[in-house]
Amino acid sequence: MELVEIGTVESPLTDRASAPKQGDEGAPEAWLEFDPRFAEALDGLEVGDDLLVLTWLDRAVRDVLRVHPRGDLANPERGVFGTRSPDRPNPIGLHRVHVLAIDGTRFRVRDLEALDGTPIVDVKPVLGAIDER
Amino acid sequence: MELVEIGTVESPLTDRASAPKQGDEGAPEAWLEFDPRFAEALDGLEVGDDLLVLTWLDRAVRDVLRVHPRGDLANPERGVFGTRSPDRPNPIGLHRVHVLAIDGTRFRVRDLEALDGTPIVDVKPVLGAIDER
Repeated sequence: MELVEIGTVESPLTDRASAPKQGDEGAPEAWLEFDPRFAEALDGLEVGDDLLVLTWLDRAVRDVLRVHPRGDLANPERGVFGTRSPDRPNPIGLHRVHVLAIDGTRFRVRDLEALDGTPIVDVKPVLGAIDER
Repeated sequence: MELVEIGTVESPLTDRASAPKQGDEGAPEAWLEFDPRFAEALDGLEVGDDLLVLTWLDRAVRDVLRVHPRGDLANPERGVFGTRSPDRPNPIGLHRVHVLAIDGTRFRVRDLEALDGTPIVDVKPVLGAIDER
């Protein structure tokens, strides 16, 4: 189960301490820079789309099983699978973003809290109602 | 970027042809069987929770970049990142499930279309409104 990097995040965010906990909590605009060898897989994506971006949170700690949610000691400790902590056995980030612009294999997005240089591993559409699929 | 298996899916679904395209399109009930060494990471999850389960779709083809959405030739071909096709560079499945019962590290869920034996790689809570996080 080895992941390939399909692209990287280009963002003004460079450290965990200053990044918002979630993309809709004040994340700056960012670029998704896709590797051109995956250009065909982007075919059909458009400005205005809402997408799910999966990343590999490469600065996370993988042997943590319990955390204080949102890093707040006032929150009782609980298992990481009940939280969105980046620290978890497989640090896959899941981000819902909105596409603002597309320039070849570069996508400008809002609502992405991933740090600069974070590898991107997948992109999926947000699913609508059953009759719209 | 090497994933560890945190558990496996136990389901009556055994082949892609008979599996529904999405979990809310008629998937049978299934079990999530977690490896006991990750038991602590499950702490706090409860019956009635809605969870996002991330799996490794081990029967997928990884060198496919364009598909007919939903496997229907009537749908024009498009890039896999605009579809939920299991065939994609990193075949990570994303499933929203509802927890029906918990028996130690076994979770009974509905709305899971993953095949029997599929490795589980992560579990995350569904995020509510900002003021509920």
